[in-house]
Amino acid sequence: MPAPFSTQRMVEFGDTDAAGLAHFSTFFAWMEQAEHELLRSLGLSVMMCDDDGRLSWPRVNAACDFHSPVRFEDRVDVEVRLDRLGTSSVTYAFRFSIGDREVATGTMTSVCCRISMTEPPQAVAIPDQIAVKLAALREK
Amino acid sequence: MPAPFSTQRMVEFGDTDAAGLAHFSTFFAWMEQAEHELLRSLGLSVMMCDDDGRLSWPRVNAACDFHSPVRFEDRVDVEVRLDRLGTSSVTYAFRFSIGDREVATGTMTSVCCRISMTEPPQAVAIPDQIAVKLAALREK
Amino acid sequence: MPAPFSTQRMVEFGDTDAAGLAHFSTFFAWMEQAEHELLRSLGLSVMMCDDDGRLSWPRVNAACDFHSPVRFEDRVDVEVRLDRLGTSSVTYAFRFSIGDREVATGTMTSVCCRISMTEPPQAVAIPDQIAVKLAALREK
Amino acid sequence: MPAPFSTQRMVEFGDTDAAGLAHFSTFFAWMEQAEHELLRSLGLSVMMCDDDGRLSWPRVNAACDFHSPVRFEDRVDVEVRLDRLGTSSVTYAFRFSIGDREVATGTMTSVCCRISMTEPPQAVAIPDQIAVKLAALREK
Repeated sequence: MPAPFSTQRMVEFGDTDAAGLAHFSTFFAWMEQAEHELLRSLGLSVMMCDDDGRLSWPRVNAACDFHSPVRFEDRVDVEVRLDRLGTSSVTYAFRFSIGDREVATGTMTSVCCRISMTEPPQAVAIPDQIAVKLAALREK
Repeated sequence: MPAPFSTQRMVEFGDTDAAGLAHFSTFFAWMEQAEHELLRSLGLSVMMCDDDGRLSWPRVNAACDFHSPVRFEDRVDVEVRLDRLGTSSVTYAFRFSIGDREVATGTMTSVCCRISMTEPPQAVAIPDQIAVKLAALREK
Repeated sequence: MPAPFSTQRMVEFGDTDAAGLAHFSTFFAWMEQAEHELLRSLGLSVMMCDDDGRLSWPRVNAACDFHSPVRFEDRVDVEVRLDRLGTSSVTYAFRFSIGDREVATGTMTSVCCRISMTEPPQAVAIPDQIAVKLAALREK
Repeated sequence: MPAPFSTQRMVEFGDTDAAGLAHFSTFFAWMEQAEHELLRSLGLSVMMCDDDGRLSWPRVNAACDFHSPVRFEDRVDVEVRLDRLGTSSVTYAFRFSIGDREVATGTMTSVCCRISMTEPPQAVAIPDQIAVKLAALREK
C-alpha cells in the first residue's frame, strides 16, 4: 500500500560528518520537514493562528532506527504514514529509502498546543477541521 | 544512585525556534556530545585508529521523550548511564533536567564498527580494552 | 542580466529562532548548497575523485549582508554569479530575494584542493576541464 | 594586547563534514555564541525585555576568513574585540586560534532592535546603560 504522503531529500555536504556519512541528526530534521510538508499539503501549517491565539505542534517523542549508511548527494525518498490519531496528539511513521534499500525508519509524536513566548505550551484537543484532514490520511 | 557520567549544556540562541523553545534536535546533538564526552573521560574517542584502521561508533537507534519546555539560556544537566553493553553495541540512557525538573529522557545505541570512506561500516566485537572501560561504568 | 544559476529554498521550522526569524546561519547553509547545486548542474561535484586522489573546495571566506527579515515557510530565490575565477580559487556572489524584496547578499570563495583525512588540504590549480566549465558561467 | 573577552569551543563530531574538517558554518555558530557569552559577562542578554517590549540584536553582516583546517576534538580559543560601536549597531571582531596557530578571523555587526513576532525588527539607539557597558570593552 503506498504511503499517503511522500517527499524526497538530498544529502547536503553540511549534513555529512567525518565518518563520510549523513549525520544521524539529518534524519530527525527530515522527519520534521516531512511532517510540515504533509501539513501544508492539507492546507495546514505547523504554526497557525486562530481567534484564540497561536496553535503549534511541539514534539513529545522522536525516534529513529538507522539501517544502512547514507552519503553525500544520495537522494532519499521519505514516506509518511499516520500511525495514531489521538484527541490531542498525532503519531507519524516515517520510512527512508534509496531505491529498494530501506535506510532508516522512524516515528514522531506531536501534540496540538496553544503556545505563547512566555507560558509553557498547553495541550488542547485537535480542532475538528484539522482532525478530519489528518484522519483522511488513513483512507488514502 | 548518581549517574556514572554527567555534563551540562546551555541552550544557545541558534538552538531555539520560532515557538521560543529549544528545537527538539538540540537534545539529539546533546546526547551525541555527552556520549563522546563520556568516551573521552575514559581515555577513548568516538574516532580511534589502531593497527587495523579506523574504529568508530555509528548509531543504529536514537530516541527521545520531551517532557517539559526548555528555553534560551536555560542550563540543562545531562546524565548518562550504561543501559546495555552487547558484544558489538552499547546503549546509553540519558536524562536531561533543570534543577528538579526533568525536561527530557532518551536512549541511543551505537555499534562498534570498522569504517572507511568507501565501504559501509562493518560491525566488529568491541575490543576488550574498550569493553572493560565501558563495563566499569556500571559499577560506578 | 539574469544570473547564470538560480535555485530556491524554503525556510524550514528548524531554521527559525526565538526572534521568529530565519537564523542567520541559514543563509550560509544555502550559499553552500547553491554552490554545490551549481557544480552539479555543470556535471561536477564538490567532492571528486581522479587518478591522483580526492579533490574538494574548502572555503577560505564567506560573508553575508542581511537586509530584510525572513520567516518560517518563506520561499527565497537564490541567484549565483561567478564573481572571480583565479588559478586555484573561485568567488561566487549570491543574491537572496522574495519576489521584489532583496533579503540578503553574500559572497563565498572556495579553493580547489587535494584533500586527505590526515593532511591539511593542499591548494592546486583548478584542472582545465573544470576551469572551462566555470568560466562559461560568465558568458551566460 | 589581550582581547577584552575570550572563550573556548571544542569541535564536536556533529560539526565535522565528509572532508574530515570542522564545517565552515561552525565558526559562524561560535561567533554568535561568543557574542552572547560576552553580553552575559556584562550582565546583558541578546534577548532582553524592558517596559517598551523586547530588545534583540539581529545581525546585518557576518564574515569569516578561514586560514587553517580544524578537526574533530580540536579545542579552539575564541577572542572577541569591539571593532566599532555606533548609535544603534555594534561590530565585533573575532580571532580563532589553536595554540599559536590562527585558524580563522571574522567580524559580525549586530543592530539593536525592537522585535515582535509580527512586525519587522525596528532599529533603535542602543540604550545608554548598555552602550556604556559595551564602550568599556575598549578600555579593557
